[in-house]
Amino acid sequence: MLRSSDKAGMSRRRLLKSVAASGGVIAAGAFDGQARANGENLPPNVADWSKYLGDGVDARPYGMPAEYEKDVIRRSVRWLTASTESSVNFTPLHELEGIITPNGLCFERHHAGIADVNPRDYRLMINGLVDKPMIFTLDDIKRFPRTNKIYFLECAANSGMEWRGSQLNGCQYTQGMIHCVQYTGVPLKLILDEAGLRTNAKWVMAEGGDASGMNRSIPLEKALYDCLVAFKMNGEALRPEQGYPVRLVVPGWEGNMWVKWLRRLEVGDKPWHTREETSKYTDLMENGKSRRFTWVMDCKSVITSPSPQAPITHGKGHTVISGLAWSGQGTIERVDVSLDGGRNWDAARIDGPRLHKALHRFYYEFDWDGSPLLLQSRAIDSIGYVQPTKAELRTARGTNSIYHNNGIQTWHVMKTGEVENVEVS
Amino acid sequence: MLRSSDKAGMSRRRLLKSVAASGGVIAAGAFDGQARANGENLPPNVADWSKYLGDGVDARPYGMPAEYEKDVIRRSVRWLTASTESSVNFTPLHELEGIITPNGLCFERHHAGIADVNPRDYRLMINGLVDKPMIFTLDDIKRFPRTNKIYFLECAANSGMEWRGSQLNGCQYTQGMIHCVQYTGVPLKLILDEAGLRTNAKWVMAEGGDASGMNRSIPLEKALYDCLVAFKMNGEALRPEQGYPVRLVVPGWEGNMWVKWLRRLEVGDKPWHTREETSKYTDLMENGKSRRFTWVMDCKSVITSPSPQAPITHGKGHTVISGLAWSGQGTIERVDVSLDGGRNWDAARIDGPRLHKALHRFYYEFDWDGSPLLLQSRAIDSIGYVQPTKAELRTARGTNSIYHNNGIQTWHVMKTGEVENVEVS
Repeated sequence: MLRSSDKAGMSRRRLLKSVAASGGVIAAGAFDGQARANGENLPPNVADWSKYLGDGVDARPYGMPAEYEKDVIRRSVRWLTASTESSVNFTPLHELEGIITPNGLCFERHHAGIADVNPRDYRLMINGLVDKPMIFTLDDIKRFPRTNKIYFLECAANSGMEWRGSQLNGCQYTQGMIHCVQYTGVPLKLILDEAGLRTNAKWVMAEGGDASGMNRSIPLEKALYDCLVAFKMNGEALRPEQGYPVRLVVPGWEGNMWVKWLRRLEVGDKPWHTREETSKYTDLMENGKSRRFTWVMDCKSVITSPSPQAPITHGKGHTVISGLAWSGQGTIERVDVSLDGGRNWDAARIDGPRLHKALHRFYYEFDWDGSPLLLQSRAIDSIGYVQPTKAELRTARGTNSIYHNNGIQTWHVMKTGEVENVEVS
Repeated sequence: MLRSSDKAGMSRRRLLKSVAASGGVIAAGAFDGQARANGENLPPNVADWSKYLGDGVDARPYGMPAEYEKDVIRRSVRWLTASTESSVNFTPLHELEGIITPNGLCFERHHAGIADVNPRDYRLMINGLVDKPMIFTLDDIKRFPRTNKIYFLECAANSGMEWRGSQLNGCQYTQGMIHCVQYTGVPLKLILDEAGLRTNAKWVMAEGGDASGMNRSIPLEKALYDCLVAFKMNGEALRPEQGYPVRLVVPGWEGNMWVKWLRRLEVGDKPWHTREETSKYTDLMENGKSRRFTWVMDCKSVITSPSPQAPITHGKGHTVISGLAWSGQGTIERVDVSLDGGRNWDAARIDGPRLHKALHRFYYEFDWDGSPLLLQSRAIDSIGYVQPTKAELRTARGTNSIYHNNGIQTWHVMKTGEVENVEVS
């Protein structure tokens, strides 16, 4: 296949300079004036890709992004963890749109790396306070009635590095431990009912099949309400790094509870006080005590573009602000945007479906005059909870924690269009 | 990384035989009885993947499906076309769930292969009956207000090989020229308004930038109503095979009009009568005349599993029927399922959001007694249109056409659980 880069010089000479920004109007140039006067051969331009056959339908049985999108990837922060197997990487939120995260870009958090589970040998055990302990194959699970739900998954530590102050220059790093896909799975209630819950059952412990055996206690009320034993994401099988072949879905609650490579569900009458709900995933307060079982991911929002990795490159004039809002309590009622660090607020436009415990996309369009901005967004959810400032969070909880930072993020847009992560007092 | 297949013998000996089907109950076995009696070491089993660290977070910057899913791919039919560059491949519907198609599995239809467009050199021209002919860069397009919509895209030739009788043994081949993703794009109306429509404007011609220069006429009413100039799918940049960096979205209308690698929009006062709307994408009737401008994709449904590529492997007992329904006219009001070739019908359960001009997922759960079945589904949309039988379609339009076959599909389930594509009279 011939690629345009093979003849880059020619195509660039022909095509560039055909557009000039003009204040107030969307940047565009009349096509039959200046370009021809400059001796350029347009229009009609004939780009290289219009001259040659491209790859055929057998070339890409499973497709991948264009080579020009090679920087749109999950990224990790090397200094953050001692090993890559117990670590995290981040969704490139600044490059994404809408509310669906493509499977290949959903952030990862592992405690012992990506378990390589053979689906033929996969088993899910149900034991504890049940009438009939059971073991299910993957095919067994697929014989229960299934449902499809679009949910966000956010790590409790998302924005955790910002608790004590702004640190990382990129929406990918500060808010990128979140994704949102359509899950297909069986309501956990149906599986527990099949085993038969005893009358003293009050909690469910979910345990992962990876080498960390990651486990968490979930109150039965939540387990029976909306949890799913999921085997598909965005239509296809779960990805290995998302728990292939089966993960737990715990809508609106912290991602650590969405146990991957799910191998066991134990029913009990009290919580297990596992490592991940005692020394980890608890919130150390100023007085030395810890908040625990802080499961719900409260209402939050962030402007994804412009942001430090997605500066304004077009200069002044019409500018699109794009962002995400979400709440573990339900839907998003309203998002406000501020251009001046929270002094003045204006309602953003929420676009696309408003689904329970899913990401919401918002936009705010304005004419940028080229002066510096302090961009903020503030979400309000369907129970009336208002996203707090970081200062409010610190007043309430101190600065020891790394979890559950849903404070308002501030991006400083400079005259050049470059953007940096700042805090306003 | 150690893979479980390295020690397949051990893990298979430990894990298999732990589950036995029992009539009426979901197949599962008590874990503490027979297995131990047989001398097998379960439970707790310790699978290989529970013993070793897996890949870390730097291993997969852009993720891919599990190796065990390597057969879930787009597939083509070699005898169908003279070349792979002007050809088609098919979405593996029988393996997918929910309503979102992952980007890597969206079917492809090309007329000159996949154009390799450099986004920096991409241009979109607007000319014809406009006040101000314009050329936009990709960045220019991204300065317009944008919106996010989940829409199905179906090729007019989907199920075309079935016009004269059942031919291909697989839902992927018979109905797989469809996908459904969330698009992010600019309403075409905003772009046309920017150029300024003249009072005699009635049609828009959309032209692709690939070597085929594929073009189609679109009535202005549709162009202004809900068409999008899209640059993202499922959150990320359009895939190359789906028109990267920009395609037209023409909701509910035949896929051929959703011009990929969109390079030009010409406004006129009458249709252009292009090749793709005269010799192609017209419906040759029994009397030798052709229906043309048959843009809307009418209401249709299909059972995706069980189907020829997705047989019933679990024997009799609880069985899940999963299928898709859609309509270019709006939403799906109801889907009925028949187990006996259309003599008796029962309402299916529609699951997930019911979005305008998007796929709808339906389920029908039943206890299979192991006798042969003739599975059918029949959709009814929000304007009251009822999906016809193939016989009704042939009576109305003859058998010359290959386009717009939305007839009811029949799958013959044999006692063995195997499934074949058949027709019932």
